[in-house]
Amino acid sequence: MLPRGRPRALGAAALLLLLLLLGFLLFGGDLECARRARGGAGSFPCALTPRIPQDGRPRGAAALDRDPQTDPGGHNRSDCVLPRPLPPRCELLHVAIVCAGHNTSRDVITLVKSLLFYRKNPLHLHLVTDAVARNILETLFHTWMVPAVRVSFYDANELKPQVSWIPNKHYSGLYGLMKLVLPGALPPDLARVIVLDTDVTFASDIAELWALFAHFSGVILLWLDRLRQAGWEQMWKLTATQELLTLPATSLADQDIFNAVIKGHPALVQPLPCVWNVQLSDHTLAERCYLEAADIKAIHWNSPKKLRVKNKHVEFFRNLYLTFLEYDGNLLRRELFGCPSPHPPEAEQLQQALAQLNEEDACFEFRQQQLTVHRVHITFLPHEPPPPRPHDVTLVAQLSMDRLQMLEALCRHWPGPMSLALYLTDAEAQQFLRFIEASEVLSARQDVAYHVVYREGPLYPINQIRNVALAQALTPYVFLSDIDFLPAYSLYDYLRASIEQLELGSRRKAALVVPAFETLHYQFSFPTSKAELLALLDSGSVYTFRYHEWPRGHAPTDYARWREAQVPYRVQWAGDYEPYVVVPRDCPRYDPRFVGFGWNKVAHIMELDAQEYEFLVLPEAFTIHLPHTPSLYISRFRSSTTYRDCLQALKDEFLQDLSRHYGAAALKYLTALQQPEAP
Amino acid sequence: MLPRGRPRALGAAALLLLLLLLGFLLFGGDLECARRARGGAGSFPCALTPRIPQDGRPRGAAALDRDPQTDPGGHNRSDCVLPRPLPPRCELLHVAIVCAGHNTSRDVITLVKSLLFYRKNPLHLHLVTDAVARNILETLFHTWMVPAVRVSFYDANELKPQVSWIPNKHYSGLYGLMKLVLPGALPPDLARVIVLDTDVTFASDIAELWALFAHFSGVILLWLDRLRQAGWEQMWKLTATQELLTLPATSLADQDIFNAVIKGHPALVQPLPCVWNVQLSDHTLAERCYLEAADIKAIHWNSPKKLRVKNKHVEFFRNLYLTFLEYDGNLLRRELFGCPSPHPPEAEQLQQALAQLNEEDACFEFRQQQLTVHRVHITFLPHEPPPPRPHDVTLVAQLSMDRLQMLEALCRHWPGPMSLALYLTDAEAQQFLRFIEASEVLSARQDVAYHVVYREGPLYPINQIRNVALAQALTPYVFLSDIDFLPAYSLYDYLRASIEQLELGSRRKAALVVPAFETLHYQFSFPTSKAELLALLDSGSVYTFRYHEWPRGHAPTDYARWREAQVPYRVQWAGDYEPYVVVPRDCPRYDPRFVGFGWNKVAHIMELDAQEYEFLVLPEAFTIHLPHTPSLYISRFRSSTTYRDCLQALKDEFLQDLSRHYGAAALKYLTALQQPEAP
Repeated sequence: MLPRGRPRALGAAALLLLLLLLGFLLFGGDLECARRARGGAGSFPCALTPRIPQDGRPRGAAALDRDPQTDPGGHNRSDCVLPRPLPPRCELLHVAIVCAGHNTSRDVITLVKSLLFYRKNPLHLHLVTDAVARNILETLFHTWMVPAVRVSFYDANELKPQVSWIPNKHYSGLYGLMKLVLPGALPPDLARVIVLDTDVTFASDIAELWALFAHFSGVILLWLDRLRQAGWEQMWKLTATQELLTLPATSLADQDIFNAVIKGHPALVQPLPCVWNVQLSDHTLAERCYLEAADIKAIHWNSPKKLRVKNKHVEFFRNLYLTFLEYDGNLLRRELFGCPSPHPPEAEQLQQALAQLNEEDACFEFRQQQLTVHRVHITFLPHEPPPPRPHDVTLVAQLSMDRLQMLEALCRHWPGPMSLALYLTDAEAQQFLRFIEASEVLSARQDVAYHVVYREGPLYPINQIRNVALAQALTPYVFLSDIDFLPAYSLYDYLRASIEQLELGSRRKAALVVPAFETLHYQFSFPTSKAELLALLDSGSVYTFRYHEWPRGHAPTDYARWREAQVPYRVQWAGDYEPYVVVPRDCPRYDPRFVGFGWNKVAHIMELDAQEYEFLVLPEAFTIHLPHTPSLYISRFRSSTTYRDCLQALKDEFLQDLSRHYGAAALKYLTALQQPEAP
Repeated sequence: MLPRGRPRALGAAALLLLLLLLGFLLFGGDLECARRARGGAGSFPCALTPRIPQDGRPRGAAALDRDPQTDPGGHNRSDCVLPRPLPPRCELLHVAIVCAGHNTSRDVITLVKSLLFYRKNPLHLHLVTDAVARNILETLFHTWMVPAVRVSFYDANELKPQVSWIPNKHYSGLYGLMKLVLPGALPPDLARVIVLDTDVTFASDIAELWALFAHFSGVILLWLDRLRQAGWEQMWKLTATQELLTLPATSLADQDIFNAVIKGHPALVQPLPCVWNVQLSDHTLAERCYLEAADIKAIHWNSPKKLRVKNKHVEFFRNLYLTFLEYDGNLLRRELFGCPSPHPPEAEQLQQALAQLNEEDACFEFRQQQLTVHRVHITFLPHEPPPPRPHDVTLVAQLSMDRLQMLEALCRHWPGPMSLALYLTDAEAQQFLRFIEASEVLSARQDVAYHVVYREGPLYPINQIRNVALAQALTPYVFLSDIDFLPAYSLYDYLRASIEQLELGSRRKAALVVPAFETLHYQFSFPTSKAELLALLDSGSVYTFRYHEWPRGHAPTDYARWREAQVPYRVQWAGDYEPYVVVPRDCPRYDPRFVGFGWNKVAHIMELDAQEYEFLVLPEAFTIHLPHTPSLYISRFRSSTTYRDCLQALKDEFLQDLSRHYGAAALKYLTALQQPEAP
């Protein structure tokens, strides 16, 4: 759902769809034809291409349209109107969007999905962003890898001084005003651009809108000349200054000023057919527009009520919005037809690597999953980075929908910063959003960053998800945990004190071990001290972690010694050791080849040891695993021999790589592996 | 994913898109115009409507098209072709589909979703089905309640004799041939219909295809005359008989015969532009079609490889298919613009009831959820109904994604028929399908019927879901269980024996109580006898169900007596009793007002008691609850005071209704409710 009622950094000023004509419009009819011939099908018979008349309509069809002079509102009946010719195949269309903050970044993604769903042309997105939105959207587009989409970023902060002199009360704030300065901010050689508000949903191909540029041919060129001669920049500044004499602060941001400029210079503007701006408000003209036009092109959620707006056809609009809100963005990673669009080099390599996989290989699914690049939406919800503190620790973990229940308890146990990666579908991401909004505990925590890794493929890419959470941790240290563990209430403070005391930053390369326990009870009174924990251990209410199933995983922690320990003690690595550790943020990443389950943490700890991290067990630290239903992913694969064989192959390859990197010292890992296997 | 390689009842013969012209085509150009004026906007200027020339193209645009005479393949470049005018707004379009069996019914739903997504006209679907598909699709469309969609069913069995004389080897079997007899099977007053194969995905508005009927004006009327004179029925039968002289059995089903008729009577056919039938096979003509036409209209998955077909643009096609496969069908329940379409009476009542709800009411969400009609897809997977046996019992339960892990164990514990309702999104339904396919245990069980109830709304409509499972049970008795319980291995046999012995069918109105226990251990050795269970109970490995949290729920079962019991014994109802029972299939339904959690089973047991069912505890029966992570739904609402207040309101309303139905006898329930509350 669109956010309701809360302030948004950028917003719902009237849909601009402003056809900004910057620089020179280089091509006339004949050049256009030559370019068509180059662009796509070489065999295209240019000589047959008719010159499009100035009104953009083929001859003979004119009688179907109403006369625009007598019907200025643009009330067209779509079953009578012949669509205008679309731009040539493969023509690059330019779109500009101003976007700031976490919530508006989510809106932009829904807008872009609707854009991509209908588009058939290559697109260049020009995004004017603050640092938060840039960080989110840069990561997203980098991992989305949509063919034939280029993205350029422009720093909104640099533009601020140009508009900050205008007082304004609109909730979109300064960012709303930035559309005024786009002509100067975008590259001078950019001739045409469609400017969109973030709360727009497309219901048709944006090329149809772009085609209206051609419709203006001649006439608009004339206007462009006037625009140049008059000087747009001076024009709007002058108008704004004049307006401010009577209006103390703008209430509609940029739209006030556009309106005022237009009023003074009506020839500058060519009104768009209203189907391109179906505004969901009580504005009667808009309602007449879509009541009469069955062919809605774009919907503008510019009522403050957003999806709850009362309107005869709101259900239709809402369903279209929800379609794209929950649409699987992976499905938009499709090639265009017959438009050779250069891939970014990573995408090219990836395609080659995927093409080289052998479908008959028993481990094909594993190899495919390893190569999958997941779309990543970092800081899906508003987040305040922790203040810089030299010994601060971020809890790092990953989860999927079936572990959301853990989040409230985790927040109660860990009062410090967290970086959590969630493996979700687009639709689940919306459920997650509602889950957070419904929880007082969770919505109060601005120091918990949630990063969505979008699901793709049959295996669980656990280490890729962990790496996203790890990469987004912003403190010098990280506590590498799992979502089904609750740390001791005191752990956050104790870890920071220990890091300081042990002088980890300057002196030692160490991994601090947090001993792990487990309880089998759902109703469980969490121990508030080591003494209480030991009592529970003695009474059989708590065990050391996986004591019955797999003691090797934590044996080197030496629980007997821990009982008595008063100071940190060093332990030696041994085969299959997989403790929960605190390490510097720049520690090795998890090896992404381990998909599904098995060896994903073991390999990471092995690499820490290969890099000569000391393992120091902390005498007062502990964390307790809570019971839960086994994951669907585990139950599906634990019993499969193919799975076990492939996991073995992955292990072998990992160890080979380890030897290659660390030489003879890595031999001990091979030896350790010869020992009996996990059950 | 489309089913791969396995036989399908109806299938992938070449896309027919056959423009069958049945009966009289009443309207010429002028009449068409008059009808437009009536249909939608009264002010439409009919006089301006041009007569469309026989080639269907507006004058002046002809030069853009290639000459169809020299380019018979229909290779159009869409950026050159002007679309033909669409049919008048609100014109009813007719679509016919032949569909048989469980898997093909799923395919049809994906096809219909793509159809509905792009359509703007009212539709009438003519479905020729076997009994299985009719049962599924009738329930689906009844609960889907899409405005401006009519559905008519035609019995495929009745048509069988007309085609069964033709031997054929094609996997679509007799159903494939039925398209031949559609002209006779459909109502005589139906003038035009578009016939679709089930493996088609639309990529555009079907009205554009319908518009091609107009394109044939004159010419096709002429052909129709010829068709009448020649007599289609005799024509195809004669042709088929002749073909069979050389061909022992058809391999392409109907398509062979159509081809042969066409060969003999080429004037009958007007080829469609190939963009309306982009066949995904190695057929070179098809590949040339879509390589050159960026504007794909419909995709035909007619390669036996289905989604795995190798093809340059298969990713594009697959993503479109997946879009609709996973599309939330609820979003298609939208009104058409400006086409007054009469609702079915249920939908009308529902709209009124929803409109009367007060959004400010604290229980608004509850009341809205109660009124929500969920789309229901019964027998989502192939299912064989149990043979009629007088004492047979179906296990009835409901679940959501987070309990899929239980299914394998449940199948091992219950060898009899089951009717399970799953509360899923459309996308989750596909995950569920893959989960079943990946499990040998589950895919081997044809006696387990899975019914999908599609998710909508924030509260869990537990009793509505249960009622779907209950309504679909086909044996005389049902065991009303919950998904997190595993029955004793012997329970299925024991229940049937008990039903027979107690002569339930003839003599008594009884609910057989299956005593409920619970374990807190994930690893758990399930007792194979009552003696083993009692030993576990004594050792504290097993408890009576919710012994610690809510003993009232099962106290009347009288576990102490059960320990010693050798024969069934009668117990009395008491407040909050919620045992697991075996009852006749025609028992009362669960009260759908209880959404979310709380009182959903208690109310049902109360109603059984009000209807004077005896509660008979079975001495050898038991079922054990396994531990699991608490449901997200529970954790969200347990703590909410609004939730508790609304639940209280629901209880009060339920009790009032009970008094109304059962009179003074129902007073005792009110008294029982005065006692202390659930924690």
